[in-house]
Amino acid sequence: MDDEDLRELLGDAAHGYFAGGAGDEITLRDNMASWSRLALHPRVLVDVSRRDSSVELLGRRRPHPFVVAPMAYQRHAHADGELGTAGAAADTDAVYVLSSQTTTSPADVAAAVPDVDRWFQLYVFKDRQISRDLVTAARETGYEALVVTVDFPIGGWRERDRRSGFTVEHPVALNPGGRALTTAELFALHDPTVTWDDIGQLADEAGIPLLLKGILRADDAERAVDAGAAGIVVSNHGGRQLDTTLSGVDALVPVVDAVQGRLDVLVDGGIRRGWDAAKALALGADAVMVGRAVLAGLARGGRTGAADVLTQLVAELDTSLALLGCPNARDLDRSFVTPAPWP
Amino acid sequence: MDDEDLRELLGDAAHGYFAGGAGDEITLRDNMASWSRLALHPRVLVDVSRRDSSVELLGRRRPHPFVVAPMAYQRHAHADGELGTAGAAADTDAVYVLSSQTTTSPADVAAAVPDVDRWFQLYVFKDRQISRDLVTAARETGYEALVVTVDFPIGGWRERDRRSGFTVEHPVALNPGGRALTTAELFALHDPTVTWDDIGQLADEAGIPLLLKGILRADDAERAVDAGAAGIVVSNHGGRQLDTTLSGVDALVPVVDAVQGRLDVLVDGGIRRGWDAAKALALGADAVMVGRAVLAGLARGGRTGAADVLTQLVAELDTSLALLGCPNARDLDRSFVTPAPWP
Amino acid sequence: MDDEDLRELLGDAAHGYFAGGAGDEITLRDNMASWSRLALHPRVLVDVSRRDSSVELLGRRRPHPFVVAPMAYQRHAHADGELGTAGAAADTDAVYVLSSQTTTSPADVAAAVPDVDRWFQLYVFKDRQISRDLVTAARETGYEALVVTVDFPIGGWRERDRRSGFTVEHPVALNPGGRALTTAELFALHDPTVTWDDIGQLADEAGIPLLLKGILRADDAERAVDAGAAGIVVSNHGGRQLDTTLSGVDALVPVVDAVQGRLDVLVDGGIRRGWDAAKALALGADAVMVGRAVLAGLARGGRTGAADVLTQLVAELDTSLALLGCPNARDLDRSFVTPAPWP
Amino acid sequence: MDDEDLRELLGDAAHGYFAGGAGDEITLRDNMASWSRLALHPRVLVDVSRRDSSVELLGRRRPHPFVVAPMAYQRHAHADGELGTAGAAADTDAVYVLSSQTTTSPADVAAAVPDVDRWFQLYVFKDRQISRDLVTAARETGYEALVVTVDFPIGGWRERDRRSGFTVEHPVALNPGGRALTTAELFALHDPTVTWDDIGQLADEAGIPLLLKGILRADDAERAVDAGAAGIVVSNHGGRQLDTTLSGVDALVPVVDAVQGRLDVLVDGGIRRGWDAAKALALGADAVMVGRAVLAGLARGGRTGAADVLTQLVAELDTSLALLGCPNARDLDRSFVTPAPWP
Repeated sequence: MDDEDLRELLGDAAHGYFAGGAGDEITLRDNMASWSRLALHPRVLVDVSRRDSSVELLGRRRPHPFVVAPMAYQRHAHADGELGTAGAAADTDAVYVLSSQTTTSPADVAAAVPDVDRWFQLYVFKDRQISRDLVTAARETGYEALVVTVDFPIGGWRERDRRSGFTVEHPVALNPGGRALTTAELFALHDPTVTWDDIGQLADEAGIPLLLKGILRADDAERAVDAGAAGIVVSNHGGRQLDTTLSGVDALVPVVDAVQGRLDVLVDGGIRRGWDAAKALALGADAVMVGRAVLAGLARGGRTGAADVLTQLVAELDTSLALLGCPNARDLDRSFVTPAPWP
Repeated sequence: MDDEDLRELLGDAAHGYFAGGAGDEITLRDNMASWSRLALHPRVLVDVSRRDSSVELLGRRRPHPFVVAPMAYQRHAHADGELGTAGAAADTDAVYVLSSQTTTSPADVAAAVPDVDRWFQLYVFKDRQISRDLVTAARETGYEALVVTVDFPIGGWRERDRRSGFTVEHPVALNPGGRALTTAELFALHDPTVTWDDIGQLADEAGIPLLLKGILRADDAERAVDAGAAGIVVSNHGGRQLDTTLSGVDALVPVVDAVQGRLDVLVDGGIRRGWDAAKALALGADAVMVGRAVLAGLARGGRTGAADVLTQLVAELDTSLALLGCPNARDLDRSFVTPAPWP
Repeated sequence: MDDEDLRELLGDAAHGYFAGGAGDEITLRDNMASWSRLALHPRVLVDVSRRDSSVELLGRRRPHPFVVAPMAYQRHAHADGELGTAGAAADTDAVYVLSSQTTTSPADVAAAVPDVDRWFQLYVFKDRQISRDLVTAARETGYEALVVTVDFPIGGWRERDRRSGFTVEHPVALNPGGRALTTAELFALHDPTVTWDDIGQLADEAGIPLLLKGILRADDAERAVDAGAAGIVVSNHGGRQLDTTLSGVDALVPVVDAVQGRLDVLVDGGIRRGWDAAKALALGADAVMVGRAVLAGLARGGRTGAADVLTQLVAELDTSLALLGCPNARDLDRSFVTPAPWP
Repeated sequence: MDDEDLRELLGDAAHGYFAGGAGDEITLRDNMASWSRLALHPRVLVDVSRRDSSVELLGRRRPHPFVVAPMAYQRHAHADGELGTAGAAADTDAVYVLSSQTTTSPADVAAAVPDVDRWFQLYVFKDRQISRDLVTAARETGYEALVVTVDFPIGGWRERDRRSGFTVEHPVALNPGGRALTTAELFALHDPTVTWDDIGQLADEAGIPLLLKGILRADDAERAVDAGAAGIVVSNHGGRQLDTTLSGVDALVPVVDAVQGRLDVLVDGGIRRGWDAAKALALGADAVMVGRAVLAGLARGGRTGAADVLTQLVAELDTSLALLGCPNARDLDRSFVTPAPWP
């Protein structure tokens, strides 16, 4: 589905929110382009009759590295909302990350889609009690990890939303039964004072593993290790925060080299093909998050549409392993990728 | 406002003058593109609840690094003319640089907009008395510094003006009450014999600090230190002089490294976003000049339009500091920028 | 003939099969672009009145380095089918490689075009007896070498074929008289367990020289030497297997340097001009395979059309030798090529 | 004048000949693009009131570095033909090089435009007597140097001419009064056996200085010194011989460094602006040849049109010297140019 079709489905305001990015959208566009700046360098004549895309994530083996990224307000994309994407994750054995800006309550998601491996995404809000309550509720309804977004101390500079005045009606976790809020009003709830000390304390109190989403520098990755994080997501927030920020894949290698396996490294931003994920693993990532591609599937066909996207990604990764001559995803290393010679 | 809208507002001749550049306009276009050849590399989990965009310029703390560049003939862009851009600078705490090709007298600007921090731009004319009178008048009416343009010994090769025969009616400082002049006639007043000795002498006599605008080489930056300049503007004159000249940002680092803080370094050319300014500061600039963006605002909405542009630049820089995890502009360093991996 | 003309000739499904590639077709497009990333650096004032494009291939001198690549299902492109391309090779002294997915039997090709130097391409099928029978039949009908395709353990991810449901009616060698098969059904016959040991055994049993097609890495090239291969084809299967895979020319130099003349090195992918072949030879290749260009000629004009393409390639190479100041193709070395300065 | 206007003026066949290049015209296009891959790095505050564009060429001071390149069949571009371009050179103090494929006899050019500094371009033909007679005639009618084209042992691969069947009616020097010839017939007269020995002999016999046009390699430049050449032209024959050949400017620096002033170095290919020439001089060239730009001027306006082009180039170079802060062309050095940061 191309972007124009998505705009027709969603209308301008919601499309602007879901498909748009910060500033001139240089980073938004580059996220997708960034993966194709790596070329693949396959090996041949290896027995690839059995492929194994599995990865180890937070100490558990997962059948493949795809994680559904946290995305806000999914009922604005399709009536299935978060139940659709969580269901799609369940259908495809993907990890599911529920956004704290969810339009379905964490408990409802847990009840409706009990079998999916669920993580809960968290912003640290000015009113810390909101965050604390969200953590408790998430843990008690079976969310296995917290994904704390750390690249959102304030809202990004998103001109499409400024023009459209996009408002949100269902951020139930934050605003149960409340009036519609603009994204700017919601963004104002975020706490811009959060530091590594707060993260250390949160890691101590959470009772479930903590991942930090939005790390782009090796020095911050080291700090994440020190703070007790179980993982990090190398991410520029889908190009939605600060335009011309480096893409996840371009920031990945120094981060991987800094942490040296002391925590799990995920990467996101622009992943649209299974071989993008193969490249991420070859560079040293443990898993990948996929956001907008799943959202587009949800918009097009609800749970089924989202599951189709994930199914294709899994199949493409499986094909990539066969054609790279590397049947086990865990054996992918940097010899399989090289800077693309094309422009 | 895009370029076509500006052309409709101004008409072909004035639009050609304000929007055009030298030769095939390779440098004109590249000035804007040059900033996006730097990617940002943000830090996270820093308390960014209070941001401080302030910089020190000519020994004084300024709330932000934006300086309105000297631009000629502003009444040709909007009836508000120089009073509009000076007013906009006052409204936004920007430094204002009045062009010696002003269509409003320096005294009138001083009287109408007393509160703005004003600098006066100077060409050295063949008739040195004109220059001397301009300096005296500027100093006496409260202009706090002189910005001597050094990259205009002769007029640039501007084909739009050659075709349109653009003429200027109001360069009051140079031609009070006189007939309309073509830009070529005005350019012929410039003195192409000016050397570093003249600058040294001017620095001695001026009575106010001297900045040299149009430096692109480290060796010339050293000479500016020796000549007693208080600052330099790394600039290619908006791409209006010699096509295929290097952009300011591409010339900046060697200049910063050469002067080592012995004078203030500003940079201009193509700045359209607050994060462009963040990059300039990260590379070591002390402030940035913004010209055409303010002019476009003036053309669209007079003083208000110009102020809107500056307000947005300030807000974008503030957002950038938050999202870079660097709440104080003075702490920006080269670790926050990296050559963009995108093409 | 441009791609649109080819689409009209062939219809969407066959055109999609012949002209399409894997995934987003980045590699497909790059194969053609890759040769133009090398610039030529000619020498002058050499007597070039007699040019000699000849190369030594499998121990025999050939008048020029062009080899017709194995291509499946040629009767879907033109009624002349494999007899057309084999005839074209005969007409132009090119080596001809018959695909095991041929729509004309190897014996019929041998009978109809007895004079062409013929090699036989082989997939290793799950049913090894099919492969063994093919080898025997090929050897007995005068095919002088086996080209074992090693980059096709499973089918590539080709979206045009998925959409069109392209079916094949005449893969006579595999399915004599059988019903039409989709490419997916045919691909399922391939054996994904084949390893270097199988190749070593095949090299021992074949009775004719063995070339391995689809090598891209220096380490695999070394293994090919060890396995007793007489040659390798540096190839990404025309961009039809795994998208964003490196092009043949970009993978060539490390392979050439690894094998050090111990076997013949051919390269394919995107060769459209005689000077592309000159570049391949200058980098150290012994010969080049040309596929789609010949296929397009076949589609346009049967045997004559295919021969025209080969004739032009030979003439362009001859012209290149003259204008490079290197009358003997064997004297081409890396001093004649340099990374192109253009983008 | 853009290319479409030129096509209308000349008709398809002549336009194809004059505007076309070899193969896919990658080199043809790149010749023009190549100059913009160098950025200028100006100096300021130098007295530039008097500029001097003069260069020394073949031991004589010339007022500027522009040389009109030899171009065949000029009456096919405009009725003024060679008299028009020679006259334009006279009008602008440019050196004029008459092509041996001239449509006006060398003697007629000499008689009609006596004041221009004239060089004569020579191909070495199979019938050496033709070449010898041409040299004698040229010397006797006041041509001061011979420009021997060495990159044309055979004709280039020009598809526009192959399609159009462009024929030439007036190559008077070669075919006085004869029938119209195709370019292929004319090209067949060239001698592909010419070597450095022949050049050495020609240099001994010519009686006037010899320049070799079409050198691209440092080793060939050394050989030119040894053969007694007075100069070389770093050139790819306007992109008309072998496609994807390196441009003159990209080949220039190693050549300049190899010859170390032992002969004059000219460069051509794609020069369209005075600042292109400034870059050539900064890299170490002694002069530049301009071909197609002058031809386009001739096509548009005969002698006047061609002179306008040269006048503008001279003025742009003068402007460049002023704005580079380098008033004397002989002082241009490599500090004024840098690889362009733009793509």
